[in-house]
Amino acid sequence: MELSDYKHYLIKKDQNDNLSKVSPDPWKDLPECKKEAREELSDLHIRLAELQQRFFVDKSKKLLFVLQGMDTSGKNGTIKHVFRGVNPQGVHVSSFDKPTSHELAHDYLWRVHRSTPANGEIVIFDRSHYEDVLAVRVNELRPKAIWKKRFRHINDFEQMLIDEGTIILKFFLHIDRATQKERLQERLDRPEKNWKFDPSDLVARSRWEQYVEAYEEVFDKTSHLDAPWYVIPANKKWARNLLVARIVVACLDDLQLSYPKVTYDPSSIQID
Amino acid sequence: MELSDYKHYLIKKDQNDNLSKVSPDPWKDLPECKKEAREELSDLHIRLAELQQRFFVDKSKKLLFVLQGMDTSGKNGTIKHVFRGVNPQGVHVSSFDKPTSHELAHDYLWRVHRSTPANGEIVIFDRSHYEDVLAVRVNELRPKAIWKKRFRHINDFEQMLIDEGTIILKFFLHIDRATQKERLQERLDRPEKNWKFDPSDLVARSRWEQYVEAYEEVFDKTSHLDAPWYVIPANKKWARNLLVARIVVACLDDLQLSYPKVTYDPSSIQID
Repeated sequence: MELSDYKHYLIKKDQNDNLSKVSPDPWKDLPECKKEAREELSDLHIRLAELQQRFFVDKSKKLLFVLQGMDTSGKNGTIKHVFRGVNPQGVHVSSFDKPTSHELAHDYLWRVHRSTPANGEIVIFDRSHYEDVLAVRVNELRPKAIWKKRFRHINDFEQMLIDEGTIILKFFLHIDRATQKERLQERLDRPEKNWKFDPSDLVARSRWEQYVEAYEEVFDKTSHLDAPWYVIPANKKWARNLLVARIVVACLDDLQLSYPKVTYDPSSIQID
Repeated sequence: MELSDYKHYLIKKDQNDNLSKVSPDPWKDLPECKKEAREELSDLHIRLAELQQRFFVDKSKKLLFVLQGMDTSGKNGTIKHVFRGVNPQGVHVSSFDKPTSHELAHDYLWRVHRSTPANGEIVIFDRSHYEDVLAVRVNELRPKAIWKKRFRHINDFEQMLIDEGTIILKFFLHIDRATQKERLQERLDRPEKNWKFDPSDLVARSRWEQYVEAYEEVFDKTSHLDAPWYVIPANKKWARNLLVARIVVACLDDLQLSYPKVTYDPSSIQID
């Protein structure tokens, strides 16, 4: 499959950009049951490990996956289930939590830029610079005059990364409020999940609509063919994992990488 | 003196942008002799130390000085002679030599962004991201299709830094070929200066005209009121140091920083 086979998941003007009209349940090109999805995902793991190895050896490109979504949308789960089996030497996850005071003393792209991939590397952003126009906006951490300018910075920054050899794909893990309620409740009900619950999640939940509005502006301002946003229906974890894995594999497949050419004729070499 | 008192040193369209018409000898607003310049520089050191301390404590802005110039134009000398006496806790120098293979595996702004100042910090770039459109261009290290796009990246990057609270001033230390010859010859003649000579300096010297052309395009594309380039006549070291010191002090002076206000009445406090 090629990346273009997933273009109906792209978020762009007049397509998937009104979140209230986008279903967070599996779409019709996804399997109907968990079992079938699991089998396909296993095959994709093998394919991904091979493609990633080739990408790592080739060292001609850099690859950046951005994961965004509401709390409990499954950013960590996606990383765990999609990227198991890759060579950790070439794959790094950067989590962008609340910035430290040292980070806050710099511009907001400073900590992000440090974590961008080198040639041959795949970097996954678990949250990202987009929080600087999402959480920062919704929680009024900086005035509008400041965050409004950031859409342009972000586009410029991503364009520079692209010009210098980075491939960027951005995923929005789309769940509905009912699913979030279930998942938060589960964190309260199951003692082994209690650590995942943070009372501040309820504050964010109470601002759901503001987040939706902020996300919609993000999509409107920062989705480009070169650095597209994909909406990932994420109410079902197995469908979410499968779709992200499919897109990631298609992205690497499209590069048509082969192992580097050698400058000698292997058949001419005799080892005594 | 205010920064606007030095606006005749700005490089912009139809002003100082044709280097062959710009004198590298001290201009008429600079003292005529070394002794007079030294006295003024001493006064400026005291002023700078005080202003920098206030800037460091205030922590509301970031300050970036970029130094560029041909070999032997005196980037190190300028740093040494202008910034002596400042609190090293708040002043950092970043030298951008030939990139390492690790740095080259990232985009060219990656190593630069890591070194940008935090609030309250003054960072001096000894060479900078401008080498990625100067040395890279003249020595054909990357194709034109790549470096041509970098003018836009650089403007976007600097604009983002500015929007997020950085003040940027850029200095071009202007010498002529005859002065370079003298200084290179001195490095050969004086054993204690031999270490400063690098045979590759002669290759760069042989490409003088290409560098001039590359610099002129840099000025044309990247000099803005918000992140201006100043031409510093640098044939005379004492005039160069004095002028940079004057501009640096004027820049800090313009900020009109005072020490942070306290929220208590110091006179009401009695220490037993």
